[in-house]
Amino acid sequence: MLDLTQDVRELTAAIVDIESVSGNERALADEVERALSALPHLKVDRSGETVVARTELGRAERVLIAGHLDTVPVAANLPSRVEGDLLYGCGTSDMKAGVAVALKLAATVPAPNKDVTYVFYDCEEVEAERNALTRIARDHADWLAADFAVLMEPTDGVIEGGCQGTLRAEVTVAGKRAHSARSWFGVNAIHGIEPVLARLNAYEARRPVVDGLEYHEGLNAVGVRGGVAGNVIPDLCVVSVNYRFAPDLSIEAAQAHVREVFEGFEVGFVDAAPGARPGLTHPVAAAFAGAVGGTPRAKLGWTDVARFSALGVPAVNYGPGDPNLAHQQGEYVSLSKIVESERAMLDWLTI
Amino acid sequence: MLDLTQDVRELTAAIVDIESVSGNERALADEVERALSALPHLKVDRSGETVVARTELGRAERVLIAGHLDTVPVAANLPSRVEGDLLYGCGTSDMKAGVAVALKLAATVPAPNKDVTYVFYDCEEVEAERNALTRIARDHADWLAADFAVLMEPTDGVIEGGCQGTLRAEVTVAGKRAHSARSWFGVNAIHGIEPVLARLNAYEARRPVVDGLEYHEGLNAVGVRGGVAGNVIPDLCVVSVNYRFAPDLSIEAAQAHVREVFEGFEVGFVDAAPGARPGLTHPVAAAFAGAVGGTPRAKLGWTDVARFSALGVPAVNYGPGDPNLAHQQGEYVSLSKIVESERAMLDWLTI
Repeated sequence: MLDLTQDVRELTAAIVDIESVSGNERALADEVERALSALPHLKVDRSGETVVARTELGRAERVLIAGHLDTVPVAANLPSRVEGDLLYGCGTSDMKAGVAVALKLAATVPAPNKDVTYVFYDCEEVEAERNALTRIARDHADWLAADFAVLMEPTDGVIEGGCQGTLRAEVTVAGKRAHSARSWFGVNAIHGIEPVLARLNAYEARRPVVDGLEYHEGLNAVGVRGGVAGNVIPDLCVVSVNYRFAPDLSIEAAQAHVREVFEGFEVGFVDAAPGARPGLTHPVAAAFAGAVGGTPRAKLGWTDVARFSALGVPAVNYGPGDPNLAHQQGEYVSLSKIVESERAMLDWLTI
Repeated sequence: MLDLTQDVRELTAAIVDIESVSGNERALADEVERALSALPHLKVDRSGETVVARTELGRAERVLIAGHLDTVPVAANLPSRVEGDLLYGCGTSDMKAGVAVALKLAATVPAPNKDVTYVFYDCEEVEAERNALTRIARDHADWLAADFAVLMEPTDGVIEGGCQGTLRAEVTVAGKRAHSARSWFGVNAIHGIEPVLARLNAYEARRPVVDGLEYHEGLNAVGVRGGVAGNVIPDLCVVSVNYRFAPDLSIEAAQAHVREVFEGFEVGFVDAAPGARPGLTHPVAAAFAGAVGGTPRAKLGWTDVARFSALGVPAVNYGPGDPNLAHQQGEYVSLSKIVESERAMLDWLTI
């Protein structure tokens, strides 16, 4: 059984050494469930390979601390190994160091100053439909109820607040087909996307400040397709556009903006995911920021933070790993950063 | 057996009624071979479903008269039917009316004023590799030797001289991949094709006069592809370009022109087929133009004329069908135009 009394650095290594590539989290989930179930101050639930443990002290506030158990595929980087201050291995940074910190807190803080829900979930590194949070939010939304959530994703020990939204649109240009030997009888739809690209090239991305954090938007073509045959003037060309928008915009407002940018063109929307405001104005979040220190920064990519935001729970990313090392063969985590994280979180839950 | 003594209009209908969609020309080729072999003034050769018949009178000049036996797929437009002056049916215009004229000439002009080679070939309506002329030029180039050739493709009774060349190029723009949430770390290759399209939109096509005929070039995008995934700044975008060039340019000169237009971009060439000069300055061609009358016009599309040109044989298209009806379900040919064609050709071969 996973020994939660050992040092957080050793615990991280122990967890890393239980391989848990997405879809194969059972062994690690079993260990986590057994270890937490042995703690009398926690109520433990399980759904699939997701383990949820909670204190029930009747505190005025409840915070949620979450980490995913899965990793990207192993790349000849297991078992873990230590070199100086660095622990190398698959999942060290993303995000078993964060999971270890959360497990230590669960074990060592029987009476936190706010109620805590610990969530250890599966399938974060794969498509959204398989992400366990999708299922938990649907089947056990009450498990996720909280005033504030911390996802212990790698952020280099800095709070990354909220996340940007994303949507994909298709800008379609129609033409008229003709034989390319007599091209003047046709209208070339590929030539017709020139102004679409001109607007993208001229586009100036917003960098709005939301709840004190600066975001950085982006509007980009991510695909283009057109063409019928080598001797035909094409009658259709479609530019796929991805808009990453700051969390001061709703999906609807973001769509309206895209329509405005491509005014005069046919615009259709393929999919969208909302952003999440950083929520750092909430007192419990402010207390967290105070305990952790440093200057919070905006999260630009879309993360599970947005799922909590959609459930009405302000959430941030915060973890000891280095986000730039995630998914890399040479992934590692700084052992001293793990200890720092554990201390900061401990202060937050106890002082 | 095909009766070559009947009127050219009836002969056209008889040939139309022997279905001969590309790949299924055997029945018609057999009929043609049998009918021509019965004529003592002709030497007949056969290769696959292609029949070649020639006079061997030792004339100073030899001309070649050619027609393809195959049609596009039947579209509930067989058997043929007559309405007033029009004969309806699959292949009437493209190009069994021309084949009927050639067969009548073969049968009724035993001692033409120049030696004549009649070529009836298969698989013109399908990909170039299956075109029988490709094989004949390779295996029996001597069968195609001549001073001038007439392809009896539908031209509405007007000489269409030469043909334009065609080449396909790929203009490639490279970029740098990045996550679209942090697009400023990448370089968007799709955005990078804007100047390629700008040059295409600004392009002014040449309309040069070659051997007295005006051609009309065209430079067009016929395909575009780019994109890695919905959340990735693409690092590659390729624009496929088709250049239709007048026959005063060699393939090499046409490629140099395309390189010049896209100066500064990576340009690769996919395939190319040379154009063919109209060759109307040759005395035997001039005599043909005189006999046929009308104002010759340039052929813009690529046709088998270019194959003869590549063998050193000037060639033109000339036939009674209407080119705008080719490949249409309601295809027809004017019966009086067939008679006109027969008379003009007869004059050319006998006066």
